[in-house]
Amino acid sequence: MIGIFDSGVGGLTVVKEVKKKLPGYDLLYFGDTARVPYGNKSDILIKQYALEDARFLIEHGAKLIIVACNTASAVALDYLRSNISIPIFGVIEPALQAALEITKNGRVGVIGTRATVNSGAFQKCLLTLQGSDMSLELHDVQKPAFMRKRAKQNHNTIKKTKLFFEPAPLLVPLIEENYLARPETARILKHYLQPLKASQIDTLILGCTHYPIIQSLVETKLKQVKVINSAERVAQELKDFLTQNQSVDRSLSKRRQERFFVSDLTPHLAGIAKQFLGQRINLQPVEL
Amino acid sequence: MIGIFDSGVGGLTVVKEVKKKLPGYDLLYFGDTARVPYGNKSDILIKQYALEDARFLIEHGAKLIIVACNTASAVALDYLRSNISIPIFGVIEPALQAALEITKNGRVGVIGTRATVNSGAFQKCLLTLQGSDMSLELHDVQKPAFMRKRAKQNHNTIKKTKLFFEPAPLLVPLIEENYLARPETARILKHYLQPLKASQIDTLILGCTHYPIIQSLVETKLKQVKVINSAERVAQELKDFLTQNQSVDRSLSKRRQERFFVSDLTPHLAGIAKQFLGQRINLQPVEL
Repeated sequence: MIGIFDSGVGGLTVVKEVKKKLPGYDLLYFGDTARVPYGNKSDILIKQYALEDARFLIEHGAKLIIVACNTASAVALDYLRSNISIPIFGVIEPALQAALEITKNGRVGVIGTRATVNSGAFQKCLLTLQGSDMSLELHDVQKPAFMRKRAKQNHNTIKKTKLFFEPAPLLVPLIEENYLARPETARILKHYLQPLKASQIDTLILGCTHYPIIQSLVETKLKQVKVINSAERVAQELKDFLTQNQSVDRSLSKRRQERFFVSDLTPHLAGIAKQFLGQRINLQPVEL
Repeated sequence: MIGIFDSGVGGLTVVKEVKKKLPGYDLLYFGDTARVPYGNKSDILIKQYALEDARFLIEHGAKLIIVACNTASAVALDYLRSNISIPIFGVIEPALQAALEITKNGRVGVIGTRATVNSGAFQKCLLTLQGSDMSLELHDVQKPAFMRKRAKQNHNTIKKTKLFFEPAPLLVPLIEENYLARPETARILKHYLQPLKASQIDTLILGCTHYPIIQSLVETKLKQVKVINSAERVAQELKDFLTQNQSVDRSLSKRRQERFFVSDLTPHLAGIAKQFLGQRINLQPVEL
């Protein structure tokens, strides 16, 4: 079973993409709605919560885990990997790889929660990818997919790529309150995007699993900028990984079963979940 | 020691008022920032969290407790009182009593979180107060303070008072992001207040301890409406209670000591705390 967790129900945007790329695979989702949001909390607490979430998924049969939460991916991914032995995928590396594939001027923007933006995780990941790019120059065949894909491009773009960050903490409550069509949301979004526009980014990473909901709105504001949906990218990375790792793929059950757990269930939640997943689901409350 | 808790640091608006009305009394504050906000969570979870918060305060020496959180007051006050034997004050009854004292046309508005507004607590409390008003008509001297104060007014106003609710879930994140001076906040506030204006309220209860921060903004939008700050009202109720209950008053230490605990400490928090309390304080992280 593929396990996916998030601080709330935003991670259902990842479920949606995984279902598209890997139809039929059994899915187990956990949303920590009793303690949502993670984005304004401390690193130590986010790590603790993420480990509890991951352990819940493993106890319920997950054979690999997607951390469908940028905050937890940014802050807790290494911590999870050092405490848990099954494969764990975060949403940051796939999004950043896509950005490196796409950017032409090497100026990449990132919007996310305060914790994600302050974590330094994107920056650290970029340095690793830049390092692997340089060290692999002589062994072209072994290069990661994102580098092979852009073989014709100048590898100097990867080396010189810079990241520009903007915390956008009001977007999650605005999305959850279904304020998308209102002018206030457009203005607040403009306010967040303006500094990135001024930095002349040509690529923007939506660094929060809530944000795919406002992707088209972002694209309207940044007409020349390519917008990256990390939900889509992590699903693709998982698919590539399973193609290359048949033994892991065989360990995953494929009976089209889906279970959705939340640590707190309110009447408001079903509607938000539907907004993210595009279909009505049965959310089961569970105590961690 | 007076114990005060809230889901986060919004309850510091209550601390501020208690310090004004009862200077010198020792104070113990607990903000459950590891699980903030409560306002969109389920009743069962809010009760559990509130009981844990109250027990923390008692273990650290509180002899009475103010639930400085409208959500917890609305959902968990009876539950707390049936599990804990020391005096417990909520913020809803004092605010509603003030509204009954003030309203002339019997049309009272309430803004708050979704959980507060949906709880039915204001409505239930109103029915109790209306009942006590009627039953006490023959025994004027025993009437609660708020009724004696308005002795000259027609008691029919109390009996016919109606409440008008509006959930305002975006105000807390806007306040915490310091978006007060921005036009988006004014527009969102207008959107929340418009139905209440249309209902011709003459009194509005700020049903969330974050809202005193925007009191003047609300007053600008509702010029003819009297706005009630529940933080101020609960502090006054406590003062009245202690005047009438000398033995409880004697049990409270008065050495001007103040301790502030939070269940999660982030760098962002100190600034928000200062905004609410009007002074910089030392926040101590603690595990529940």
